[in-house]
Amino acid sequence: MAYRLPDDGDTKPRAICTACHTVHYENPLNVVGTLPVLGDRVLLCLRNIEPRKGKWTLPAGFMELNETTSQGAARETDEEAGAQIQMGPLFSVVSVPYVGQVHLFYLAALLSDQFQPGFETIEARLFTEEEIPWDDIAFRTVKITLERFFADRQTGSFGVHNVDIT
Amino acid sequence: MAYRLPDDGDTKPRAICTACHTVHYENPLNVVGTLPVLGDRVLLCLRNIEPRKGKWTLPAGFMELNETTSQGAARETDEEAGAQIQMGPLFSVVSVPYVGQVHLFYLAALLSDQFQPGFETIEARLFTEEEIPWDDIAFRTVKITLERFFADRQTGSFGVHNVDIT
Repeated sequence: MAYRLPDDGDTKPRAICTACHTVHYENPLNVVGTLPVLGDRVLLCLRNIEPRKGKWTLPAGFMELNETTSQGAARETDEEAGAQIQMGPLFSVVSVPYVGQVHLFYLAALLSDQFQPGFETIEARLFTEEEIPWDDIAFRTVKITLERFFADRQTGSFGVHNVDIT
Repeated sequence: MAYRLPDDGDTKPRAICTACHTVHYENPLNVVGTLPVLGDRVLLCLRNIEPRKGKWTLPAGFMELNETTSQGAARETDEEAGAQIQMGPLFSVVSVPYVGQVHLFYLAALLSDQFQPGFETIEARLFTEEEIPWDDIAFRTVKITLERFFADRQTGSFGVHNVDIT
């Protein structure tokens, strides 16, 4: 690999294979997930994998090809929490440029309080606002999403929150 | 390259280099842009590059590393239209799973009616709703975003529109 300008008018250096000349573009990745709600409680997952093993997160993961943002969010909720949900509206869109990611969270209504977490999750548990382990939240995007949710719940009106973490 | 399951518990086949065993993940790409507004007119760009050369689009392009969604949208607006804008709120988030993309458009207020389009754009021009060349819009995500904008303008209230094109 060599980093140089491609020959197509592109203005940024790209990783180009010195053998086959393939341009390997590197672009931000989307992380998609849900904020599952049951009554006055929300679902968090205790991470069983790095990074942030042993910290609490909302169910979320990398968006895959051939799915929409909400389909990816539903898939991750199933994989990480084994939770039965009805998908709700888009709630937060958070850019994290220093890791090259955009995190998108949907509100979701839990249809059951029984969970079947996958191997990535030690435990899936419901928390009231007062019970949220704020000092042990895995990611800032999750903390921001939870904060905005509880603030919006006070007003009774849920918006779409576009936040940049810089 | 061989397509097989990685050894880390991943459940999807990935492109893995048979020589160095690097896993080359392929994930959806974000396209970020703006809907620039001046009075009752919006800015469209006549594409000078494929795909859809000779069709009209909103200024937009692939999000790069080390930028937020809105920073990318501002950069593309500068590169493709040379337009002076004040960035507004997130307006549309459109999944296009069959091409592995998510398109995000921001509203933007034009500060001038003078444009300096780059090499990707033949012409940048302002259109009223009645003048929009609906049959010559380059991408469905752009058409949907324009339709939602004019509908919201009727009501005087602009939301965030999350749409899936499937």
